[in-house]
Amino acid sequence: MSSAGAPHRVVIIGGGFAGLNAAKRLRKSPVSVTLIDRRNFHLFQPLLYQVATGGLSPANIAAPLRWVLRKQENCEVALAEVVGFDLDSRRVITDQGDFPYDSLIVAAGSRHSYFGKDDWAELAPGLKTIEDATHMRGRIYSAFEQAEFHHDPDERRALLNFAIVGGGPTGVELAGALAEIARDVLKHDFRRIDPAEARIMLVEAGPRVLEAFPEDLSRSALASLESLGVTVRTGMRVTDITPHDVELTSSTGAQRWPTRTVLWAAGVLASPLSRALAASSCAKLDRAGRLNVEKDLSLPGRPEVFVIGDMASYTHQGDKPLPGVAQVAIQEGRFVAKLIDHRVRGKPLPEFHYHDRGSLATIGAKSAVAQLGKLHFSGLLAWLLWLFVHLMYIVNFRNRLLVFVQWAWNYFTYDRSARLITGDVPTDDDLAALQKLVIPSPPACPPKSAPTT
Amino acid sequence: MSSAGAPHRVVIIGGGFAGLNAAKRLRKSPVSVTLIDRRNFHLFQPLLYQVATGGLSPANIAAPLRWVLRKQENCEVALAEVVGFDLDSRRVITDQGDFPYDSLIVAAGSRHSYFGKDDWAELAPGLKTIEDATHMRGRIYSAFEQAEFHHDPDERRALLNFAIVGGGPTGVELAGALAEIARDVLKHDFRRIDPAEARIMLVEAGPRVLEAFPEDLSRSALASLESLGVTVRTGMRVTDITPHDVELTSSTGAQRWPTRTVLWAAGVLASPLSRALAASSCAKLDRAGRLNVEKDLSLPGRPEVFVIGDMASYTHQGDKPLPGVAQVAIQEGRFVAKLIDHRVRGKPLPEFHYHDRGSLATIGAKSAVAQLGKLHFSGLLAWLLWLFVHLMYIVNFRNRLLVFVQWAWNYFTYDRSARLITGDVPTDDDLAALQKLVIPSPPACPPKSAPTT
Repeated sequence: MSSAGAPHRVVIIGGGFAGLNAAKRLRKSPVSVTLIDRRNFHLFQPLLYQVATGGLSPANIAAPLRWVLRKQENCEVALAEVVGFDLDSRRVITDQGDFPYDSLIVAAGSRHSYFGKDDWAELAPGLKTIEDATHMRGRIYSAFEQAEFHHDPDERRALLNFAIVGGGPTGVELAGALAEIARDVLKHDFRRIDPAEARIMLVEAGPRVLEAFPEDLSRSALASLESLGVTVRTGMRVTDITPHDVELTSSTGAQRWPTRTVLWAAGVLASPLSRALAASSCAKLDRAGRLNVEKDLSLPGRPEVFVIGDMASYTHQGDKPLPGVAQVAIQEGRFVAKLIDHRVRGKPLPEFHYHDRGSLATIGAKSAVAQLGKLHFSGLLAWLLWLFVHLMYIVNFRNRLLVFVQWAWNYFTYDRSARLITGDVPTDDDLAALQKLVIPSPPACPPKSAPTT
Repeated sequence: MSSAGAPHRVVIIGGGFAGLNAAKRLRKSPVSVTLIDRRNFHLFQPLLYQVATGGLSPANIAAPLRWVLRKQENCEVALAEVVGFDLDSRRVITDQGDFPYDSLIVAAGSRHSYFGKDDWAELAPGLKTIEDATHMRGRIYSAFEQAEFHHDPDERRALLNFAIVGGGPTGVELAGALAEIARDVLKHDFRRIDPAEARIMLVEAGPRVLEAFPEDLSRSALASLESLGVTVRTGMRVTDITPHDVELTSSTGAQRWPTRTVLWAAGVLASPLSRALAASSCAKLDRAGRLNVEKDLSLPGRPEVFVIGDMASYTHQGDKPLPGVAQVAIQEGRFVAKLIDHRVRGKPLPEFHYHDRGSLATIGAKSAVAQLGKLHFSGLLAWLLWLFVHLMYIVNFRNRLLVFVQWAWNYFTYDRSARLITGDVPTDDDLAALQKLVIPSPPACPPKSAPTT
């Protein structure tokens, strides 16, 4: 498949769980690997909500891709933005030039989606990138800051109302963390407001939270959320978001709730690269923008092109497509790497079988739910399991250590040291407001040339 | 001075070393304290260069002001932007309303300054805020990323040229850290360039680096920098900065040096609040925008208004004004708080005497210079001293622990986990570039209604 002498060229797009695991699995293969990402780090997305709530720093859940792959000599990393494909001549087109390939693995992930209501993006920030997380963190802590000094009691109450849209793991974990911030973390921090008066509402369109989990664990999660003071509204859709409130609609009617902070943990949409691939192949897109892939995760009609992770809709096992979670991405990445390795070596090709290792979600700092096959856990045991699994999957040892130290600290002190409000802040340069300077009576000063003392 | 019954109101502007130490020193005083800052955290600025070079995370050198002061019941924190003063009626005017005071402490610090060349701000980022540091970090690591994939050898060389303007502690520490990044940290990370070929030039207008230190320590610092491969150019002024090069001018002429990364560690300018205070009092501004203060650090003619830290020019000891460093700010903050405390209690007023506890600067991970009175150290002993002093002055214990763990890790592994390129990155939404999508031959696909499998 490659020209004589030159190694088989594998190009991987995306350094998330899928792409990074594919690259690592190819480390002993007689291939040359190029991993393209527009960011210079792998992000441990399952813990992004902890950055958004000030428990961890961005760098704690990120690992520089070059550093992770520095000892893998058959692999290079390219910081580039993919802008298209030429599947016929086997080239990936990027802002840093073209990358020719013999095998292509596309794992560009997904973004949150507002179901076509793009103007909600500004009002209800989502959580997929480091920038999303630091922005959300700023929004959350700013709301408390503004409430502290607001004179109007209605406005103050609205500033202390937080709506979280989407009852999946991200929404549940955000709601739990927010409840603890309000009740414990900020307990002694304010003088004019009581942060514990904050109301956190979790809105889920389906009949229960954590719909991907068994029903008994959904009930446990609900109980944990309610014991933290979170108001859970299931069977309700968000039908409008304004800077002042949200509209919630159920089968029985609509109501508005005043809030200044709406956090989006609902739909996702695959990378637009999936549209580009669909246009130049016979693959179909599902409603979430994912590509229907073949049994071996290749693009229909393009056996040398693989689509994995959040961009792929894989329906060959069971009736529902595999979910967009880390363990699916990891297994798909490793499988595709193995398949390419076998193909290059002329060995029999493997088949893909997804092994569901279970599901985990945490609710606050002391509770979680876990499903391991037929075993269901909730409470402390599930939480310890959650802790262990997440620590083990964090990519580098340094971060594992730092996260552990911070979690232990957060657990015992309710401190959230990483709660910085950063980003858009006024600087001296935009201090046009200084024009407002009030000088009622310009003082009578000695002549400017006189010595000061 | 205050109305009967109500406690004396102290308003402090700025939660840096000066303002925060003033607030803490007042914890047992019969006063009510309001600390106003536009940021919600205290920043340990001396370690900002470590954030800019990826060794530490922003939250490691920041402490939420509310958290630091949470147990000080006579103190409240206001997140607000000061826009002016009404000194006659004793009010601070902010975007969150007016704050009346009986005593006012202004400690709003300084920004870096481009000596009137404001268009350099875009080309040569400075280092005063968290955002500055993460921006600079992105610039540094992006230069290596771009060099890796650039075809033009001249451009590649320019991308690996780094100019640092200013040979004070920040410039020297940045140059040392950058040299280690190029030589050690990135050693195994690239495939097409050798990061060790990067050239780091430190430009200082004066005759020597670390001019505030004794001459023998300047020489030690110079030797350390040169042993790390840094080119030090003293007696040279930067007279032009373009996106492509810098112009260096000495007494013998001008020369241009191609570089894409210029880092600014030169002049500082006091907060524009100093201009506002000068306009409404008889205080004079010096060239760096600092206010000439009285012997007790009050504003001339306004004994109830104090100006401390980087905004103050205090010349009553020796002939040079006290430098804009942390120990000056801390001592001034504590003194002013004590003076207010004594005034309120009717005790004899203290006098301000600055005690120079010495100076420290580090050059890379294993060398430093230290002056303690008449004692001069350099090398390992100075470095250990630097380490100890900086760890001890970090405000909260959690950060002390995290910084220690990370320094130990960085020291032994040359890892810089926090080297994230964040901020302005392309998102799917701006992927207009996807229009470039190349589809040489639209494939012949089965009709769209056909089942996928």
